[in-house]
Amino acid sequence: MFDPALSLAVDEDEVALASPFLKCLVRLIRAQDSYGAWEGKADRELLAAFIITKEQRRGIPIIGDPDPDVLWRLDMFYTAIGLAIEERCGLMASPIMELSREGFGRVLFTTGRLVALSKTLRDVHRFGFETLRKLAGAGTKLVSDAIAAIETYPEVARA
Amino acid sequence: MFDPALSLAVDEDEVALASPFLKCLVRLIRAQDSYGAWEGKADRELLAAFIITKEQRRGIPIIGDPDPDVLWRLDMFYTAIGLAIEERCGLMASPIMELSREGFGRVLFTTGRLVALSKTLRDVHRFGFETLRKLAGAGTKLVSDAIAAIETYPEVARA
Repeated sequence: MFDPALSLAVDEDEVALASPFLKCLVRLIRAQDSYGAWEGKADRELLAAFIITKEQRRGIPIIGDPDPDVLWRLDMFYTAIGLAIEERCGLMASPIMELSREGFGRVLFTTGRLVALSKTLRDVHRFGFETLRKLAGAGTKLVSDAIAAIETYPEVARA
Repeated sequence: MFDPALSLAVDEDEVALASPFLKCLVRLIRAQDSYGAWEGKADRELLAAFIITKEQRRGIPIIGDPDPDVLWRLDMFYTAIGLAIEERCGLMASPIMELSREGFGRVLFTTGRLVALSKTLRDVHRFGFETLRKLAGAGTKLVSDAIAAIETYPEVARA
């Protein structure tokens, strides 16, 4: 039976998986697979941990230290942002993150003397995206913002 | 009995205590004294915790988490740097610090879109200075470096 809604969702995922940001994130995750345990897994499976539905979000307690798995995902996501920035403009973007135990914080990317990107983190306990498309979109937007800043102040980014 | 070496040391301390950076640091420490417990204490006494002789340094173990007192001093020192930068140029410099449990890390000060100051932290367990003069000198140098960067890229610092 043909379900057009399902087919649309699948297409959306395919498009998202082909985005440079998600390719970068997948490459980064695979680079950590020292024992080849994930070799048989599809990209979509590797990224499944980043997908959290609205219902699942509501179920995650925001009391206590954020889960180590969440911190790992946060780290992967922002490291991938840095890599994707470098891929697009050739300049290294180093991340620095400050996170309180309450799940609030700030992440900065610096390129030379320039703050290429500065983002406030909220609700870290529940870090995740509803769909692969939203994950790809959020990453791509952050990378584009950073590239725009670097293009505005190229000499500072190279200082 | 007149001891010229001692007299020199005292003068040096007086000069250091009069430096804008140490005045800023003292003001910051006094601002935390909600119950007036330190009202009777001289500035020199309040800063005594920052002074660590070479011998004392060697005695501090660098294994395990840095002492909370050391982290407090580190926080005061770098917050004072931020305040002193703001005092000198009128622009707010926000610090962001990343610290590993091994006592290594990085501190950045950003002003607008500019990285006004970036410093690698090492040996945090043993954070301290041999003399008040060295404490004042280290702070003043960091503030001057940040001001120099802001003066080089004024439009980025205001972005």
